[in-house]
Amino acid sequence: MNWDTVFAERTSEMKRSTVREILKLTAKPEVISFAGGLPAPELFPVERIREATDTILAERGTEVLQYSTTEGMPELRKLIAKRLSNDTLKISPENILITSGSQQGVDMIARILLDERDRVIVENPTYVGMLTSWKPYHLHFSAVPTDNNGMQVEGIVPLLKDKHKLIYSIPTFQNPQGTTLTRERREKLAEILVDNNLLYVEDDPYGELRYSGDPVPSVLQIEAAHRGATDVTGNVIYCGTFSKVLTPGLRIGWIAAAFPVIDKLVQAKQATDLHTSTLNQFISYEVARDEEFLNNHIAHLREVYRQRRDLMLKTMEDHFPEEVTWTRPEGGLFLMVTMPAHLNAAELLVKALEQNVAFVPCDAFFIGDMGHNTFRLNFSNARPEMIVEGIKRLGVVLKAAMR
Amino acid sequence: MNWDTVFAERTSEMKRSTVREILKLTAKPEVISFAGGLPAPELFPVERIREATDTILAERGTEVLQYSTTEGMPELRKLIAKRLSNDTLKISPENILITSGSQQGVDMIARILLDERDRVIVENPTYVGMLTSWKPYHLHFSAVPTDNNGMQVEGIVPLLKDKHKLIYSIPTFQNPQGTTLTRERREKLAEILVDNNLLYVEDDPYGELRYSGDPVPSVLQIEAAHRGATDVTGNVIYCGTFSKVLTPGLRIGWIAAAFPVIDKLVQAKQATDLHTSTLNQFISYEVARDEEFLNNHIAHLREVYRQRRDLMLKTMEDHFPEEVTWTRPEGGLFLMVTMPAHLNAAELLVKALEQNVAFVPCDAFFIGDMGHNTFRLNFSNARPEMIVEGIKRLGVVLKAAMR
Repeated sequence: MNWDTVFAERTSEMKRSTVREILKLTAKPEVISFAGGLPAPELFPVERIREATDTILAERGTEVLQYSTTEGMPELRKLIAKRLSNDTLKISPENILITSGSQQGVDMIARILLDERDRVIVENPTYVGMLTSWKPYHLHFSAVPTDNNGMQVEGIVPLLKDKHKLIYSIPTFQNPQGTTLTRERREKLAEILVDNNLLYVEDDPYGELRYSGDPVPSVLQIEAAHRGATDVTGNVIYCGTFSKVLTPGLRIGWIAAAFPVIDKLVQAKQATDLHTSTLNQFISYEVARDEEFLNNHIAHLREVYRQRRDLMLKTMEDHFPEEVTWTRPEGGLFLMVTMPAHLNAAELLVKALEQNVAFVPCDAFFIGDMGHNTFRLNFSNARPEMIVEGIKRLGVVLKAAMR
Repeated sequence: MNWDTVFAERTSEMKRSTVREILKLTAKPEVISFAGGLPAPELFPVERIREATDTILAERGTEVLQYSTTEGMPELRKLIAKRLSNDTLKISPENILITSGSQQGVDMIARILLDERDRVIVENPTYVGMLTSWKPYHLHFSAVPTDNNGMQVEGIVPLLKDKHKLIYSIPTFQNPQGTTLTRERREKLAEILVDNNLLYVEDDPYGELRYSGDPVPSVLQIEAAHRGATDVTGNVIYCGTFSKVLTPGLRIGWIAAAFPVIDKLVQAKQATDLHTSTLNQFISYEVARDEEFLNNHIAHLREVYRQRRDLMLKTMEDHFPEEVTWTRPEGGLFLMVTMPAHLNAAELLVKALEQNVAFVPCDAFFIGDMGHNTFRLNFSNARPEMIVEGIKRLGVVLKAAMR
């Protein structure tokens, strides 16, 4: 078989994720890695999950190990609907589909909505995992610049002279920058969506991890308020996950959207994998239904991650050369570093790995040939002493590169 | 939003699976359902899974709840490679990708191999879950007739005057018919594949569930032998699963294929859902690595399912009208019933549901406008007394329809 000629045309746009390939390089224990998007494993509620799993296997063993519905476990859909609702927006379980992580949500949204060569609007830089999933559709990505307040939403309007299918962004603690779209810009975005009858995909894996500043409602909530609606019937398709607030290994995410979207997604999911693991849905429900536990757990995560963020930012101030700048996120897992334009982050990574420190160059997150001088640092995964040591080493590597 | 105009063109070929929608109708406890493809939950090794889960959460809790590699857990890939190997064919873990059930395997194979309007060869009837996944690519399905010995493989050759991308079938205990491709036909199929440089997808969820007759090697093994190869470098892409021999709720399946195929599938899976649940891979490995346990468990399943198959066949002999015929499978979960041509299985289902019995009409499994007089019965899920009662009721409904 001549394998070079056998694959579908769309695979020409598939490649192994740069980030995941870098993660493999950094698997050696001596490497201090700021590369992954990994939560801190020592904070996983292992004992609580162990108890919950034992309880459900003892009490409902045959049910949790059997096939189940594509839509997801009813009690879990109800719990998620409640957590996404606020005083005015009342989300129904019918508007929730359980997915195998939020990556599957993002992937299936493309499957039901995007035709080949469609135009979509994204912030720049944007989430590389979305690009990996969506590029095989040969889309035209229209890039909107970002600043410390997230996507510059006024940049959307001039793009609309061409027909666009949807807008995708991570408005809260973005990946890779960690920045958050302000409330004012969310209001403006909602207005644009409603006025132009545009779809918006709100990818929100990090929203619950705020360490400072004031909470901002989701675009899902703001768009509904803008329409004066109390239910999910509008133009926002929202993707969430337990990966960052419980554990990623269970692969439990969800989509909240208008019912016609959920209905079509159910058809896509039947074809994709029938349904998400019954056991893992039950485990997640059994743990999350204890709201006091879940909220305390999230509060604990916030406290630890806040300290790590602050420690990383302070160590960067002390050890990075002054020609380098970076974002100062109010939450999430990441910040982004920008070096002078003549420096290349992929080349810097080679030098950094020689010192056993790793990060992710951000060029793959950008639309267009740019961002070669930027890289992403994760501050949630490494323990404090490793953060200090790793940032110090990175400071040395950066200073050497400046010469 | 006008939802009618918003979805991608490919969704015109998406619809909710008939089978899964029927399953919802049959969820009432008073219904005796032969509709699902469900294994018997009372045979699930719940206690063994409970112990295994507790052990791995106690010993490797943070690891099993963290993100993991797209390819899958190394030990599990090794175990599966070994189970698929025989005296001559030695499969390497590098040739195995862990999937979220074998449905995901079938779905991702299309994603990497099939362009819009490609031609593929399938047996008729064929597995409806494949059709659900593949139809959105607007393929041309060339149908090869089947008989009690499976696909009539000599029917493939005349089709090859047109370029076809691949052949898909379930050669062992087929869904919906329960029939098995003979060894002789597998040899012929292997010859056709090699002579014409054609890809073949061997979907094999039921292969380990044989109740009578002599075992037949997989097409994967026979094709390798035909080429004189001792490793997986050929034209067969094999999909397997633990769903039928352990439990479906864990959603653990696999693909065995030549490395270039696995490599491309890894890229597709990164985009689709990053990786299959770490926890569920560890649970499956922890249970399956005890080969004696697993083999004894499968032997027990075979014994119970053999009795249920035999009981269903005997009760059908006693109670079904003589104008009706059916397959007599040597394994698997299903048999298929054929009524006289003027009868319609969907109409019969309405009458059957009035008597609280359910089955799946098979027209959706057929390529072309045919099979309206056929339906599928599952014999693994219902307990013996329910099999007798349900088949008796179905006999009454059938006899009434004959009049």
